[in-house]
Amino acid sequence: MTPTLAEIVKARDKINQYVHRTPVLSSQLINEILAHEIYFKCENLQKVGAFKFRGATNAVLSLANEAAKRGVATHSSGNHAAALSLAARQHGIPAYIVMPRTAPPVKKAAVAEYGGQITFCEPTQVAREASLEKVVAETGATFIHPYNDYRIIVGQATAALELLEEIGNLDIVMTPVGGGGLLSGTALVTHYLSPKTRVIAGEPAGADDAYRSLQMGKIQPSVNPKTICDGLLTSLGTRTFPIIQKFVHKIITVEDDFIIEAMRLVWERMKIIIEPSAAVPLAVLLKERETGNKTKGKRLKVGIILSGGNVDFERLPW
Amino acid sequence: MTPTLAEIVKARDKINQYVHRTPVLSSQLINEILAHEIYFKCENLQKVGAFKFRGATNAVLSLANEAAKRGVATHSSGNHAAALSLAARQHGIPAYIVMPRTAPPVKKAAVAEYGGQITFCEPTQVAREASLEKVVAETGATFIHPYNDYRIIVGQATAALELLEEIGNLDIVMTPVGGGGLLSGTALVTHYLSPKTRVIAGEPAGADDAYRSLQMGKIQPSVNPKTICDGLLTSLGTRTFPIIQKFVHKIITVEDDFIIEAMRLVWERMKIIIEPSAAVPLAVLLKERETGNKTKGKRLKVGIILSGGNVDFERLPW
Repeated sequence: MTPTLAEIVKARDKINQYVHRTPVLSSQLINEILAHEIYFKCENLQKVGAFKFRGATNAVLSLANEAAKRGVATHSSGNHAAALSLAARQHGIPAYIVMPRTAPPVKKAAVAEYGGQITFCEPTQVAREASLEKVVAETGATFIHPYNDYRIIVGQATAALELLEEIGNLDIVMTPVGGGGLLSGTALVTHYLSPKTRVIAGEPAGADDAYRSLQMGKIQPSVNPKTICDGLLTSLGTRTFPIIQKFVHKIITVEDDFIIEAMRLVWERMKIIIEPSAAVPLAVLLKERETGNKTKGKRLKVGIILSGGNVDFERLPW
Repeated sequence: MTPTLAEIVKARDKINQYVHRTPVLSSQLINEILAHEIYFKCENLQKVGAFKFRGATNAVLSLANEAAKRGVATHSSGNHAAALSLAARQHGIPAYIVMPRTAPPVKKAAVAEYGGQITFCEPTQVAREASLEKVVAETGATFIHPYNDYRIIVGQATAALELLEEIGNLDIVMTPVGGGGLLSGTALVTHYLSPKTRVIAGEPAGADDAYRSLQMGKIQPSVNPKTICDGLLTSLGTRTFPIIQKFVHKIITVEDDFIIEAMRLVWERMKIIIEPSAAVPLAVLLKERETGNKTKGKRLKVGIILSGGNVDFERLPW
């Protein structure tokens, strides 16, 4: 069943003592460039450097005692794995992580450091799922899907909940979209608390499966995605897609060039570190400005959830 | 006369609407590494990316109407120049900036972008002062010294004022020290509001003139400083030194290796961008931990003012 507002609020009360209440920042210069009023909810400053810690903490706290003891398991390209590892460690239970061997070194290191027990696999959906099944069979751990799980969706929704509480009357709330955990949670809580606010997602043009899924009315798989946004390579899930269909105003695709420009703009002007995936919503606004699109002339109040800040400083994209 | 608490509070009320109230952030992992409880006051997230905007705004707001119209002028290696340029622009008056031609490109660009009118000079104190005198004679602008000015000291003090209001019972407050504007303001307001809190400054070992000045009881010039901390190359001033002598517990020097390590730690773990100068207090704590010094065994509550985040991304020190 689609999570209710009460469930989201309850999740927030539960995870509150474990997660950072991240600041909402703004930049006069970025506002001038875009002619909008933009409020950045800084989940890059969240523990493990990503909003994923919200959902992971909520999932771990949702387990019954017996199940919790056997631990949790997941497959993830990175931030969810680090988040689940730390959430598990904070509650004294094991975390078993299946990771593609091609995941960025900085993300592998984070998982190991947070105490996750890693099994590497080939970077395909099939290999991930097979490895995971084996791990779960051997350990009895509970599989916590990176996004296609209501406990996760409800946890991720708490970022937008805090944003909406802090900044009233937003015209638009934006997130990136990969598997749709952050987007569906954001869309739900925005629908409940601020139904006039439109929820818009940004998606890399080279990984536009969510955009195509909305067009076709059916989940489209992500095949050979090509983008620097390593957090946005997965397909939507059966739990995230219906919520996105119902409550997301639209998904806009944007090229990596704009994403790199947006990422650098935030580094230079706001002095905070965001990963490419987190830069996608701002990249959409930069692109719209350049193409003279849509909001022409109207100054909007836009909330953007900056999803994460895990970057390998040895391989910056500029 | 040494500024009073009332003057600092009045400055805060005056500049409030122009400056960001910057967040105070902490990192569980950095706390674990150092075995202290550390609160970072993020002036790197201040406008123009540095605490300097506080003092500059206060100075501009302190001018009488007639003087204000003729504008302000200064010499600065960077952040003060950018800060004064933006503060002047926000109040519709000109800013004339004398900069050493060797200043980092990113800082030159910032000054130009904020509307400062730049005169380049040789990178010596003598050349700076001569160029500045000429500019002031030609324009009638008011010289706003980067630190040796009570309007500036009082403005910089407002960062620590906010920190002390937000986090109670700090054992220590730390800042870097260059000319001493931030340090003297911090020491003053801490003395007034939290006299039991010790104020400790970090200084690059390769630019240890403030450390030597305290030892000798007399301002020692900064001669051929060698450090990556381009914001900390200047000598103390006749207004900052007496305050520092009276109210600063001590100055601790630290090598650039620790400074780079501290800078990277903040980037990686806190996902915020700080410049080398801002990393000096944390570098001191890293060094003290390594040498097993002083606070051994005692978990302290430490406030650190992160002074700025203006970094050239093409020349990172790692």
